[in-house]
Formats: sequence, C-alpha cells, structure tokens
Amino acid sequence: MISDVPGAEPQPDSTTSAEQQAPHDVVLAIDINGESFEAGLVTARGELIDRASAPVEPDVGPESHYTALALMVTELNEVAREHHNARVRGVGVGCEGLVNRGLELVSPVSLSSWRDFPLRGRLAELTGLPVFGDLDAKVLALAEGWLGAAQGHREFCVITVSAAIDGAIVIDGDLLEGASGYAGQVGHMIVEPGGRRCRCGAQGCLDAEASGQAIEAITGRPHSEPTYEIMQRTGRLVGRAAAMICNAFDLTMVVVGGTVASGFGATFFHAAQVALDEDARLSYSRGARITPSRLGETGPVLGAGAIGWRGVRRSVRPARSQPPNAR
Amino acid sequence: MISDVPGAEPQPDSTTSAEQQAPHDVVLAIDINGESFEAGLVTARGELIDRASAPVEPDVGPESHYTALALMVTELNEVAREHHNARVRGVGVGCEGLVNRGLELVSPVSLSSWRDFPLRGRLAELTGLPVFGDLDAKVLALAEGWLGAAQGHREFCVITVSAAIDGAIVIDGDLLEGASGYAGQVGHMIVEPGGRRCRCGAQGCLDAEASGQAIEAITGRPHSEPTYEIMQRTGRLVGRAAAMICNAFDLTMVVVGGTVASGFGATFFHAAQVALDEDARLSYSRGARITPSRLGETGPVLGAGAIGWRGVRRSVRPARSQPPNAR
Repeated sequence: MISDVPGAEPQPDSTTSAEQQAPHDVVLAIDINGESFEAGLVTARGELIDRASAPVEPDVGPESHYTALALMVTELNEVAREHHNARVRGVGVGCEGLVNRGLELVSPVSLSSWRDFPLRGRLAELTGLPVFGDLDAKVLALAEGWLGAAQGHREFCVITVSAAIDGAIVIDGDLLEGASGYAGQVGHMIVEPGGRRCRCGAQGCLDAEASGQAIEAITGRPHSEPTYEIMQRTGRLVGRAAAMICNAFDLTMVVVGGTVASGFGATFFHAAQVALDEDARLSYSRGARITPSRLGETGPVLGAGAIGWRGVRRSVRPARSQPPNAR
Repeated sequence: MISDVPGAEPQPDSTTSAEQQAPHDVVLAIDINGESFEAGLVTARGELIDRASAPVEPDVGPESHYTALALMVTELNEVAREHHNARVRGVGVGCEGLVNRGLELVSPVSLSSWRDFPLRGRLAELTGLPVFGDLDAKVLALAEGWLGAAQGHREFCVITVSAAIDGAIVIDGDLLEGASGYAGQVGHMIVEPGGRRCRCGAQGCLDAEASGQAIEAITGRPHSEPTYEIMQRTGRLVGRAAAMICNAFDLTMVVVGGTVASGFGATFFHAAQVALDEDARLSYSRGARITPSRLGETGPVLGAGAIGWRGVRRSVRPARSQPPNAR
C-alpha cells in the first residue's frame, strides 16, 4: 500500500483539523501525454467525479498549447465549485518525459513545442493552487498502488508499453527516485544486445524492440494490427526486462499497462509471464508475477490525482513529524 | 557520502555524551567469504588497527567452522582491550549470500556447512556485544562510500567480480534494500540472452558469463591466467550490465572490485567503460563512469567495520530523532 496517498490515510472523520476534508474535496488532475490534455476531479477516496479533454493541436507554438490546457483547467475548476460544490485542494500532474523534479521545466517527448516549459509555475499562477507532478509512469505507479492492481503492495514495478516504454518502481511504499528522479526507467534495459538502434543511441533497448513505435518500424504496420508472432515476441521481451528488474530491485510484482500491452491482451501477458518465469529464479525473485493494470484508460488521470493528493497531504503535515509507519 | 557511518558524523569531540567515543573505540569487523574468516579492529575514523585471519577448513561440520571463527573473534577482542586499550563497541559482519536481513540466518554459498546458521545470535552470545551485518557486496558499498572510490557520493553502484558476481546500490546516501534485502544484485542481469545456464537456472546472466567460475568453465583455465580476449569480453559484459543499472536506477557511478576485476586490470576497465559509454545514453545516465574499488583487499573488513559502526550509531540514536540531513 502506498503511504501518503489517501488509501493509506485515516478516514476523514479521524483526521486532524488541518487535514479535515469536506466530502467533496478534490484534486484537479491533469495528464499530459502529447496526444491530448486530459483532466479530472479526483476525490480523496480516488473517485473520478468529472472529466475533461482537449486535443493537442499539431504545429502550433508553446503558448497556443498552453492556452488550450489553461482553458480546460479553468473550466474544470469552475465546474468543481459550481456543479460539484467541491473545494479544489491542489493540482496533480502526470507528464510524459523529460520532466525535471518538481515539474518546474517539462519537455514531453511527443509535444515538441514544449522544451523546458515552466509548467508548474504557469499552472500555479493560473489556479492559485499548489501544483504537484511527476513523470507519467511514476504517477501511474502511485495510482496502481492506491486503487489498482498493486493495492496493498509496498514493493512493485509498473511498466507502460505504449508508443514508448516507461516504468516506475515502488520500494517500501514510496516511489524510488534516484539521483535525478528517473529511477525505474525500464525502457532502456538491453533485451537484444546488438539489436535495433534506440532513440537513446544504444542498441537493443526494450524501447527499441518492443514499444509501439518499434513494432511499427519493424513490421511496417500499425501496432494495433499485430501478428501473433509480434504479440508473443513483445511479451517475451517485456518479460525478460521485468525479470531483470525483479532480480536487481528485489521485487515479485510487475504491473503492466499501456495501449500496446492492453491491446495485445492474453497472448502478450502469457508470453511475458513465461519469460519472467524463465529468467527470475533467485530465492527472492522466483514466482514473480506480471499482472495487467486494473485502471485502464482512467489510470493516467487517477495517477495525476494520486500525486496531487500526496502533495496536499505532505504540505499540511511536515515530513519529519509523520508517524513511524508513514513516509 | 554515506550517512550513518562515521565519515558523515560530527567528530568525536562534538558528539553527545551517549555517542562519546574514546580515541580507541573500535568495531570488531568480520568478513565471511567461504575461503577464510577475516577479522579486524576498525576505528570510528575507518582506521584498521589490527587484523586476524583463520582458514575455512574443507569438509568439517558447521560447529567446527564456528569454533574456528569464535576462537579468532575471542582473541581479537582480547587484543583490542589489552594491546590497543580499545573499547569494542559492537561487531560488524559482511557475509557471502544468502543472508537474511539482520544476519539472523546465513547460508554462504561457498561455505556449505552453514545452512540457515544462526550467526547473529551466536556472535552476540559469544561477545556480549550488539552484532550488525549484511551481504558482502552491501557492506563493501558502505565502505567505498565512507573511505573509498565513492567518497562524497550519495548515489552509486558497487559490483564485485570474483568467483561470483554480486552488487549493491546506494541511493540518497543509504543502501537500497528491497523487499527482502537483495536489491542491487547485479549478477543476474541478462547480458547474453540464450547464453550459458546460470546457477540460478536462467540463461545468460552476468554471473554465468563473466564471473571467475564462469570464466574457468568457459576457458578451462584458472581465471588468473586469462587471455586478452577473455579480459576484454568480461569487461564488456560487466559494462553492459552496469549500463542497464545506470539506466534503471538513475546512477552515474559504478565502483567495480573483486579479484577477477582487479586481476584483469586496465584491459578489463577500459572495455567496461567503452560498453558503458555505448549503452548508457539517457539524459541522466550519459557520462556514467566505471571506477576501480580503492580499498583493495582491505575492503571486505572495512565494509564489516562500516556496517558495525552504522549499527552502533543507529542504536544510540533512534532513527526518528535523527537530524533532517541524516537517514
């Protein structure tokens, strides 16, 4: 179970006055994925009570993109107050990489107009609310631990297999950060030494062999029209990377989401589990399981909600005065 | 810099009375590696002021092995008091795997008479002192951060290439533990998919391709008599695994020790760095460096001293009342 998200917290009626929540306290949750801006209102119990979406227009400048996002956010903020009688406690954001820690500057790979775009400052200025955010895979991991397939687990990995492959790792109930916030990046495990050249420059990375973009480059067909062999191969390679992660991070649970993985379904998940069984055989990694994300297409916005709520909680309760079982 | 080992602490004259150290306060440090029992007296500044060694006799039972260790420990304890006028504050142990957390039961791979041997209890009973210990690679990482090649670094990986390959990871100044204490095990990164069968059962693990035992099986010669090609290949494979670790754990520093790595020298380290450069190319892993351990053959005993001192510090100062910059 993830600490610092509401699922790990006392229920509202047992909280201190500083943390008291109205029944309709919400976080305004935003997912930035390069194809669209998605937003929602997420309660402290993880209910998604309203949603909004705005397309990312191609070939416009950074300010036009921001204006589209700002309009949606402003509208949803009004809807929260007027339609749901809700108090918006903060803003949570999940953003495609690269993202520096704290979301001060973002450069989403597939939203090329934003390069070092000062997203946190702009959203804080717009809403007057505290803004918390992180990489999309990391916030999804928070949501899977709070509400999804990893509920009740303190150690697990999340891998998202979509156009690109990303990942995040939870150890001891919290996200593993690393020196610059990128720990858990699974897409650059080398699964085929000497294989395809990756966008990072190395050869045979998982992202270069099994992502949606890689599958389209390899097969010349959309990844939504895979052959049986491609579904199997993709599963096998994800399973191999998952095994290395389990061996090196001392884990036994891997939650896999993303459009490619969910589209390939049982064939993918079966092949991934077989590869994981073959390659994770240490005393502590044997029996590791791959399990599909349970949050489906609501995962990214719920993830943004999870990091928003985590931030709100932390800001009302200084880290050093937490009870011993919370971090 | 590692917190909770003496290097990160105030000097003795500024400590509180509970932590006051005589000039010759020491930890009795023990390294259990399956070939010999090594011990030493380690001061709070990391000086090794005395040493002892006892061979591990082949084909004797668990109690005979323990008796040899106990004799050496008792003698060194006496030497500390009588010869060095030192107060022994605790016992620190670095032990070949498998080791459960807290060292309660140990099963060192190459000391086959000990299977679930209750090492911590026996040493505590023998010495009347608190006993702290962990896997050999993990305690070496503490020592490299305290006194060696990673001094001043809060994030790094240690890989030991000896008969077997092990590893440990330091993030945010402390050892990464994982669910059961084995996080950082680098030996089972798969560097040659479909390659040699590993003792763990998987194929192509780093340990099955590049450890001393693997090299002897592949070449039919002692690993101390390598060809140029074997030194290069071993370096390349260690560099590939190191790159995956840097990519997945968000690291830029890898300290490599162990008899095989040090024996192969510059040829090994050059090939490892070339492979690391080829495969670690993400914004945060680019420029990662492989550097030789600086502690050489004193590393294991200094590591045992480091974990001993960390334990002594933590036991006089409850974790929750630590100052904010220590963990």
